[in-house]
Amino acid sequence: MTDDRRLRVALLGAGSVGSQVAALLLRHGDELADRAGARLDLVGVAVRDLDAPRDTDIPRELLTTDAETLLVGSDIVIELMGGIEPARTRLLQALNAGADVVTGNKALLATHGPELFEAADQVGASVHYEAAVAGAIPIIRPLRDSLAGDRVQRILAIVNGTTNYILDRMDLEGADYADVLADAQRLGYAEADPTADVEGYDAAQKAAILASLAFHTTVPLDAVHREGITQVDAALIESARAAGYVVKLLAVCERRTDEGREAISVRVHPALVRRTHPLASVHGANNAVFVQAEAAGDLMFYGAGAGGVQTASAVLGDVVSAARRHIAGGVGVGESTRANLPLLPIGRATTRYQITLEVDDRPGVLATVAGILADGNVSIATVEQRIIPGDGTARARLVIGTHIALEQDLGDTVERLASSGVVDRVASVLRMEGD
Amino acid sequence: MTDDRRLRVALLGAGSVGSQVAALLLRHGDELADRAGARLDLVGVAVRDLDAPRDTDIPRELLTTDAETLLVGSDIVIELMGGIEPARTRLLQALNAGADVVTGNKALLATHGPELFEAADQVGASVHYEAAVAGAIPIIRPLRDSLAGDRVQRILAIVNGTTNYILDRMDLEGADYADVLADAQRLGYAEADPTADVEGYDAAQKAAILASLAFHTTVPLDAVHREGITQVDAALIESARAAGYVVKLLAVCERRTDEGREAISVRVHPALVRRTHPLASVHGANNAVFVQAEAAGDLMFYGAGAGGVQTASAVLGDVVSAARRHIAGGVGVGESTRANLPLLPIGRATTRYQITLEVDDRPGVLATVAGILADGNVSIATVEQRIIPGDGTARARLVIGTHIALEQDLGDTVERLASSGVVDRVASVLRMEGD
Repeated sequence: MTDDRRLRVALLGAGSVGSQVAALLLRHGDELADRAGARLDLVGVAVRDLDAPRDTDIPRELLTTDAETLLVGSDIVIELMGGIEPARTRLLQALNAGADVVTGNKALLATHGPELFEAADQVGASVHYEAAVAGAIPIIRPLRDSLAGDRVQRILAIVNGTTNYILDRMDLEGADYADVLADAQRLGYAEADPTADVEGYDAAQKAAILASLAFHTTVPLDAVHREGITQVDAALIESARAAGYVVKLLAVCERRTDEGREAISVRVHPALVRRTHPLASVHGANNAVFVQAEAAGDLMFYGAGAGGVQTASAVLGDVVSAARRHIAGGVGVGESTRANLPLLPIGRATTRYQITLEVDDRPGVLATVAGILADGNVSIATVEQRIIPGDGTARARLVIGTHIALEQDLGDTVERLASSGVVDRVASVLRMEGD
Repeated sequence: MTDDRRLRVALLGAGSVGSQVAALLLRHGDELADRAGARLDLVGVAVRDLDAPRDTDIPRELLTTDAETLLVGSDIVIELMGGIEPARTRLLQALNAGADVVTGNKALLATHGPELFEAADQVGASVHYEAAVAGAIPIIRPLRDSLAGDRVQRILAIVNGTTNYILDRMDLEGADYADVLADAQRLGYAEADPTADVEGYDAAQKAAILASLAFHTTVPLDAVHREGITQVDAALIESARAAGYVVKLLAVCERRTDEGREAISVRVHPALVRRTHPLASVHGANNAVFVQAEAAGDLMFYGAGAGGVQTASAVLGDVVSAARRHIAGGVGVGESTRANLPLLPIGRATTRYQITLEVDDRPGVLATVAGILADGNVSIATVEQRIIPGDGTARARLVIGTHIALEQDLGDTVERLASSGVVDRVASVLRMEGD
């Protein structure tokens, strides 16, 4: 085909993903050349420390600490440094010099995505970022290309492997959060400081990226409502199980009609998922993205959400695409944000809820509770009342499943329940997704 | 962006998919224009009968019976006629005139794919066919682009909704094949003549397309080994269930090392799939493609495998891609078949097997059976022997799970077992996939 063509590829970063990308570029040169239409010459790998230990051997002569010089004259720049700076500056330099870029940097995309896409548009270059969401799972390309003729209605996604691993083990073993977290840290599934994962920051970055793409709208990271899993305990998972549900940390991206106008809601929080739902069988540190589209119906994409070599697969797929585009010339695909839908605050989100109350077991309590719910525009779908055994007083646990309600109505109603005098304690309030 | 640009789109065929494509093109014009970078003007719809009833209304003035004239001057030609001719001739005409083409025609691709791809290469046009395999599920683009930097090792795919619907109901209800088939025909899940589905012809076409793409090798349809589900009965499904398996009609595409050389095996047959495998929970008429890649690990793509509007989503995604490419100019992506791996005959396939024998329940029988297996290079992994109750004679059912064996060894061994004198009947031989 075009084996005489050669493209210069610069790699910035040689951590767990970067070092695997270097290894695969060097090992599979012939196959990649065939698929890309040009040889991909790895001209250098920018690292912070030339002597740091790495997962794979990179020839010493390829290593450099000078990223800025490395990317001069490169046709394709792969950024796997992570963090905002200097990644942002280097990618802008690369784009301005006409290189096509590939990045797996979700933090950068979620905060400075529009800036990068605009810089690419200016020079007719392209930005590829399949590795930024859900590791090896092809989800960016399906959303941007395969569903380009459809309308995405909703995405429910498990995009953080650490929290799925923790919740899955809590579900399987009845174990407590702190114990599983400690074990996950010991096994390398969670970091020493687990905040980014367990508080939902990582998932929120991915939600912003997915929603931007699915709804052709710029979704700022700070507009994504975010709750983590630190409040999820063994009792909550057990009662979810008893009711036929599993608790998952979900990124939810929804197209909505709100007060007569089209809008979107983007949020990350633990949610009850029915055990028969495809997302319920996503175990361990795996990821899955469940997409509901107007024409295509329900789709699910499943696989490893992290891991150096797995994510390297996504990066190399992007490198081949970037190479084909670089050869073909013409304009980049560009990120369409023309739809520019308004982003709803969390109070305007709608979903079903499960409210668990501890109440006195005496006549009239249920009627009072039901009245408060009705007054608050929260419609009851299911109620289950059980005596709380063994504490002498006559107390009951009331588990209420609601129909779809507005988050702000639900919040107001729960406050009114808490101060109503008939409710001892609001044990939990959980969103139910995917029903 | 480029709203002044316009592309002429011709649609050939207005059946269940085609009429939905026409409706979506007409209804979502603005959104499609934004995503494609040009307005997509539907210039005509070629049909056989102007007055035939259709799923959606197509303006009368767009209809024509003259496909050949319609495609003159078109930028993008969508072929949803089905069948080999005149679809093949029309697509070649379109490609030779420089149009990019979109087709959902699996029969045509499986038999004349290379001819179409070559015609496209000659003029720098492109052939898009996401709708040809697994309906709405994006699988072509992930295989061709997302995994372009990886090596696919194996694909296990449920690509025929009719047979999955039948097998799923047999599994859930313990029903018999003929009863479920009759019901499926009544409900529209199976056609009056179900041969193409139940004998595996449809799945074999899709297997040829998937394997060609995954292994960068031309896979002729007649080289795909094919078995259907007509021999699967309630007893077989019940004994699979008892052993923790479900029976699925699988398209299997495998990269193999055979006698020291790299090769591929492509086949369609019923197979035992462990109930914990992600493919086991694919119910009803849904499709799923399970991909194992060297770097990416296990991936699964799940969704509706058929349906007019669902498949129309895949077609429109392709139309947007074709439009972007048409505007960008340059060369088409092309189908890489450079790897050109040899295709193994079914005798050289390897997998695990479950062999169910009815034997006399007397001393030495198991030793004889085990000896024949060992002589035939078939290694035993599990054995379960049960008395066959109630028929007076002392007979037993022997269920043998093998380690990985060569198909021709297995076949020879089963023949020797059948004629050994200790085996009354070979009740079933099933391949076990995905373990």
